[in-house]
Amino acid sequence: MSIETEKRNTGSRTWPHPEVVEDFAQLRQRAPLTHCITNSVVTNFTANVLLAVGASPAMVVTIEEVADFVRIAQALLINVGTITTIDAEVMLKAAATAQQTNTPWVLDPVAVGALKFRTDIVVQLLSYRPTVIRGNASEILALGGFAGGGKGVDSTASSLAALPAAVQLAEQTGAVVALSGELDYITDGKEIITIPGGHEIMTRVTGTGCSLGALIAAFLPVTTAVRAASAASVIFAAAGERAFRESRGTGSFGVAFLDELSTIGIGEQLVP
Amino acid sequence: MSIETEKRNTGSRTWPHPEVVEDFAQLRQRAPLTHCITNSVVTNFTANVLLAVGASPAMVVTIEEVADFVRIAQALLINVGTITTIDAEVMLKAAATAQQTNTPWVLDPVAVGALKFRTDIVVQLLSYRPTVIRGNASEILALGGFAGGGKGVDSTASSLAALPAAVQLAEQTGAVVALSGELDYITDGKEIITIPGGHEIMTRVTGTGCSLGALIAAFLPVTTAVRAASAASVIFAAAGERAFRESRGTGSFGVAFLDELSTIGIGEQLVP
Amino acid sequence: MSIETEKRNTGSRTWPHPEVVEDFAQLRQRAPLTHCITNSVVTNFTANVLLAVGASPAMVVTIEEVADFVRIAQALLINVGTITTIDAEVMLKAAATAQQTNTPWVLDPVAVGALKFRTDIVVQLLSYRPTVIRGNASEILALGGFAGGGKGVDSTASSLAALPAAVQLAEQTGAVVALSGELDYITDGKEIITIPGGHEIMTRVTGTGCSLGALIAAFLPVTTAVRAASAASVIFAAAGERAFRESRGTGSFGVAFLDELSTIGIGEQLVP
Repeated sequence: MSIETEKRNTGSRTWPHPEVVEDFAQLRQRAPLTHCITNSVVTNFTANVLLAVGASPAMVVTIEEVADFVRIAQALLINVGTITTIDAEVMLKAAATAQQTNTPWVLDPVAVGALKFRTDIVVQLLSYRPTVIRGNASEILALGGFAGGGKGVDSTASSLAALPAAVQLAEQTGAVVALSGELDYITDGKEIITIPGGHEIMTRVTGTGCSLGALIAAFLPVTTAVRAASAASVIFAAAGERAFRESRGTGSFGVAFLDELSTIGIGEQLVP
Repeated sequence: MSIETEKRNTGSRTWPHPEVVEDFAQLRQRAPLTHCITNSVVTNFTANVLLAVGASPAMVVTIEEVADFVRIAQALLINVGTITTIDAEVMLKAAATAQQTNTPWVLDPVAVGALKFRTDIVVQLLSYRPTVIRGNASEILALGGFAGGGKGVDSTASSLAALPAAVQLAEQTGAVVALSGELDYITDGKEIITIPGGHEIMTRVTGTGCSLGALIAAFLPVTTAVRAASAASVIFAAAGERAFRESRGTGSFGVAFLDELSTIGIGEQLVP
Repeated sequence: MSIETEKRNTGSRTWPHPEVVEDFAQLRQRAPLTHCITNSVVTNFTANVLLAVGASPAMVVTIEEVADFVRIAQALLINVGTITTIDAEVMLKAAATAQQTNTPWVLDPVAVGALKFRTDIVVQLLSYRPTVIRGNASEILALGGFAGGGKGVDSTASSLAALPAAVQLAEQTGAVVALSGELDYITDGKEIITIPGGHEIMTRVTGTGCSLGALIAAFLPVTTAVRAASAASVIFAAAGERAFRESRGTGSFGVAFLDELSTIGIGEQLVP
């Protein structure tokens, strides 16, 4: 796998591998305490992904504790996949606290645009200035619309088609946008990093996207937001490609993916 | 594995294999968006089962969104395994909406009869006319009682012992009843389809029963209710038998089961 | 693996292997219905652990049902890992009912001391006299503090450093304390049993500690509290060591761990 310059856009550059290796070594050394408020489908897989790479996940999800724990944690993930009335309040308090305490945080706006309630909450969450927004093409297009770009939801959109919305969203919110798809794009509104790789089978194992958001969060305390999103995406792509070669179907892929994440070498080039 | 005529009951017939193959091809082609409101123990496994076969699972579980999402989804599963006060309201709204919009839906009345609260909710859910009711012998016997058959709960009941209750329940509710056990029985109150196979180890991996309900739901948009319940049961039995032969214990069985579901051939005979 | 006498403390003794074998045979024969109110990250893994060894897990978590189900169940686990406002009420009602009905129960006070809300709830739960308290060094030190020992939270504490707090906690509460770490210690305040073994990789798979609490609960109906905690710890240590030798990373470790739990021999010595 190579990490290529995105030639079609201004502001792109070549992503240097040594930075990924350096950031990954830092993550493993510091084991960032990563506060995950995520959806009920992927809590277990997300925790296992973070433990596999050497981070320290913690799921603290009640209104009485969430602000205190944001203050303790080094990073925060908010994923609205199975949001409930009660979760919404918890998420808003977590995000508000993260902004106050300068705790870096990732927003994963699952299915934003498709359902009004979560869309309203996501718009409110945006006001607390997430460090990174991670989504697929449909979600980024929807958010772009709410951020003034006028885009609607397109569930069949490719990540390339959503790239202009991602750039605009980054410019408007100040967040780094991590746009997932066949190619992953990372942008801060100025530069665009393109990360190829991974494997289509990842779309058939629940939590691979959601746990990418968690891994980006885990990287935030040890590096810049652009590097955090890029390192997480590079590691996921490499682990996904390797795991596919060892798997017999989607079940063993999920297992092999965690195996790869837990053993991938810090000093190696991360090139499958 | 063969799908045999149930000789002991009137109305039975031989189930044709080509229909399963045809329905499975349709499911994979159309990837039905399957709205799952299920219990907290099996959300991850259920999503992975549906993704493995090629369906599109989505767990939307808050009162503000549930009706809108039933309208978007092609099918609905309601499983009361870990029902809470709040879930009950969500489930009732989902079921009411499914009835209004003619969205086909599966009711999995986990532990009905054993606990009053869920029993009351399940009785209310029945009034919204589920397309399919999937349960084990105890659950079907309990529901038969509430539907007027006077049966109590018998947690040690065999599926054959509950077959009369299943037939009666189907007649009284208009639902197809999928009765799980050593033999699976599918009945619409007139015909009875018997599906042998699967493996006892499936009772030692959580979610194999609950995700069968989800797979039945995923089949509903592409075929009749009897064929949907039968196709799902046949595929589960075949995948279960194959997976057992590849497994060293219950952990690797669960993994191999997903592998089989994700690779089982559309054109093959589904005979282990 | 050997189960050694803890020489450094009075009251220690050699733990006899035959008792573990006997208790495990009883558990498999009686398949205790084990009511788990546990955290959202580990529900699936916990259910699969209990099913693997031959127990019968059930997660019943709503206020309307919890007292009735405590009466039906043979044992109860309360784990506060992802406690919410609503869960707290459910847990308190479950514990109160368990005390009334003499249902043996395990308290797993995840992260007690670190967050005020759960600490307050755990203190209330203690008043309902858990049969066993299972925790890591930090949790036992924190609880010791609240029980009058004056200890604070020390997240880097070793299990040996927390052993005096464990003994004191057992004396003060009347519960058996199961202190997890590189060495596991089981104490009723008089004797101390030391259980070596397991593998460090277990700290990198979520739910290995939480499901130990569930397994202790499952043993409570078939033996004494000290033997229940010891048997569960011995089985986990043996399964963990064996699984590590079969695994390629944290993903396959989790799978192999369930495989070992489901196949480990009743008549064998449980010595890796």
